[in-house]
Amino acid sequence: MKVSARNQFKGVVSEVRPGSVYTEVLVRLQGGDTLVATVTKESAESLAIQAGKEVIAMIKAPHVIIVTDFGGYRISARNQLQGTVTQVKLGAINSEVDIELKGGETVAATVTNESVEALDLRQGQPVTAVFKAGSVILAVAG
Amino acid sequence: MKVSARNQFKGVVSEVRPGSVYTEVLVRLQGGDTLVATVTKESAESLAIQAGKEVIAMIKAPHVIIVTDFGGYRISARNQLQGTVTQVKLGAINSEVDIELKGGETVAATVTNESVEALDLRQGQPVTAVFKAGSVILAVAG
Amino acid sequence: MKVSARNQFKGVVSEVRPGSVYTEVLVRLQGGDTLVATVTKESAESLAIQAGKEVIAMIKAPHVIIVTDFGGYRISARNQLQGTVTQVKLGAINSEVDIELKGGETVAATVTNESVEALDLRQGQPVTAVFKAGSVILAVAG
Repeated sequence: MKVSARNQFKGVVSEVRPGSVYTEVLVRLQGGDTLVATVTKESAESLAIQAGKEVIAMIKAPHVIIVTDFGGYRISARNQLQGTVTQVKLGAINSEVDIELKGGETVAATVTNESVEALDLRQGQPVTAVFKAGSVILAVAG
Repeated sequence: MKVSARNQFKGVVSEVRPGSVYTEVLVRLQGGDTLVATVTKESAESLAIQAGKEVIAMIKAPHVIIVTDFGGYRISARNQLQGTVTQVKLGAINSEVDIELKGGETVAATVTNESVEALDLRQGQPVTAVFKAGSVILAVAG
Repeated sequence: MKVSARNQFKGVVSEVRPGSVYTEVLVRLQGGDTLVATVTKESAESLAIQAGKEVIAMIKAPHVIIVTDFGGYRISARNQLQGTVTQVKLGAINSEVDIELKGGETVAATVTNESVEALDLRQGQPVTAVFKAGSVILAVAG
């Protein structure tokens, strides 16, 4: 599969919780982290998403928020992956920040240059990559 | 209406499926494609969205994913529109890719330069523009 | 808390409406505007989000749409904040537009340069910053 989404993680569905319009899907990644995705109930049924199924979870880089210091706060976003900044690529307005997760996967985040400055983002920095369950797209084989 | 959302499609609501918090709305575009939008139930009621109603479906360019090869995979995102790349505008970090749909409408997608390289995106290439139902905003007249 | 999300608003939860998978949360900002966020029901419960609780609502700049003229249309997005453009920073592909709300808060939006031209965005212009409830992340202390 060739997709422009910069973040693509292989995993296995560990739980499926259907609602009225949306279904919540928990995916255990190869590196050990667990992601949460919300897909429409119709998609979950159409793709036969169920526990044990192998999936690829995809998230576009502009959907990822970077937290360097929670300062005692907790965040509603269901996906919060700890890692280390490996690269900061500065553009005119936006920058791309690459983060290596503890499990070995890499997350790319697009943030504004002002955020890079405000958070003093740099290689080697421990950060948390945060994104909402609604930002995750699932792909299944077959 | 003057809105910064790069993608604006005129269509007619073909089906409305209310849930507990979200309502799923199917919109038939002039070009023949059908879009799916999820809006909050309160919005759907406030805007009196019902079958037969004319709407404009809006999607920001950073929400669009480009697929060049499904490689046997199926994707949970409800909107998957086939088209042809008409233009690739390279920036420092991000590029804008314009895609002409079979129905004649144009979709603009913002993707990272790395994705442009990885997918070898270029004019004339057949691609699928993919976005989640949750990325779609609906506008109604009156 | 140090977070890359450019838009962070302090407020107080005024209402919580649980659904099957998602919970709708209304937040009254210090400036007087009310925001709507949809977070998963599990997050709302885990963070003990309830009326009267202080929260920070966070929205990434690429999720914000700018409307300069509704032209008689109404829009499904639950968050529509009126303000005035204070700055337009042009990049190669994308621009950042800063908007000062009537309540005093500032909203940053990332839009394509084409939208800046099409809407003739410039300092001093009255605009509406629009984003979906699903784009909002909530943070709570403790």
